[in-house]
Amino acid sequence: MSAAPVKFQARKTVGQVEEGNDLAPKFDDRGLITVVTTDYTSGELLMQGFMNAEALGLTIKTGEAHYWSRSREVLWHKGATSGFVQKVRELLVDDDQDCIWLRVDVAGGASCHVGYRSCFYRKVPVGGDFDSRQDDGHIDLEWTDRDKVFDPVEVYGDAPNPTKL
Amino acid sequence: MSAAPVKFQARKTVGQVEEGNDLAPKFDDRGLITVVTTDYTSGELLMQGFMNAEALGLTIKTGEAHYWSRSREVLWHKGATSGFVQKVRELLVDDDQDCIWLRVDVAGGASCHVGYRSCFYRKVPVGGDFDSRQDDGHIDLEWTDRDKVFDPVEVYGDAPNPTKL
Repeated sequence: MSAAPVKFQARKTVGQVEEGNDLAPKFDDRGLITVVTTDYTSGELLMQGFMNAEALGLTIKTGEAHYWSRSREVLWHKGATSGFVQKVRELLVDDDQDCIWLRVDVAGGASCHVGYRSCFYRKVPVGGDFDSRQDDGHIDLEWTDRDKVFDPVEVYGDAPNPTKL
Repeated sequence: MSAAPVKFQARKTVGQVEEGNDLAPKFDDRGLITVVTTDYTSGELLMQGFMNAEALGLTIKTGEAHYWSRSREVLWHKGATSGFVQKVRELLVDDDQDCIWLRVDVAGGASCHVGYRSCFYRKVPVGGDFDSRQDDGHIDLEWTDRDKVFDPVEVYGDAPNPTKL
């Protein structure tokens, strides 16, 4: 691995950012950029997280997903605890470079701290489906996955749950 | 369409939020929730945006994607200007309910204001690919799509570009 750190370019013009070849990511006032992570093969959305500049640089250099954990306020090598490392097959950036798309392999594993394969295991009825079911505006979520890939208590022990109310 | 507004539940416990049937979304201190929008058929990531409570309610009721535009600070019925409305086939919520996943159809259309089908049309070399190419840490983006679906000048005229430096 090259010893040189990953270099990001300064954001100079809209043309450069939207239609140039420079990687000039926009980190927000917290120093973070939004990350969307999908399964390379199935296209399934696995999780949505954040990176700081260090996490983005490490992801590019190592080819393994690194995030910034907002709840724990630490650099987070995904899978360091659970073993379910995300191998990055493709890393894309959006038009205005304020979002990163990771297309990953998670061999047989999960990306959700609750134990499911994906963080997105519940569905909201929309449009006609919502309208035909609800008189009072109340919504019942529909489950799309009930099979946990791992037992979070076994894997994370008594580490604090990252979900904030 | 029912006249009742869409009702969100209060966030009471981690168990309720992560493994219950209540829709209890977490809006951040700006009143926004992150939205990830993929193509229902191809699985391609089209865009990443934000919703406020009104946009989420309207999306659920109408079955068409509504967002909050941070650059224009308005409720944004996607496609109102370009004609490329996003029909929501599935709307999912993540474990801690601070992210929405829209799976949409955009008949023959685009979701990117620059004119491409997806906002993600450039790739960053990672891991071995990055390492084998770069000595000084400099990155050249690789284009994955060069074919615009529409001409943004024709569609948006002289409306201000939403990309911020």
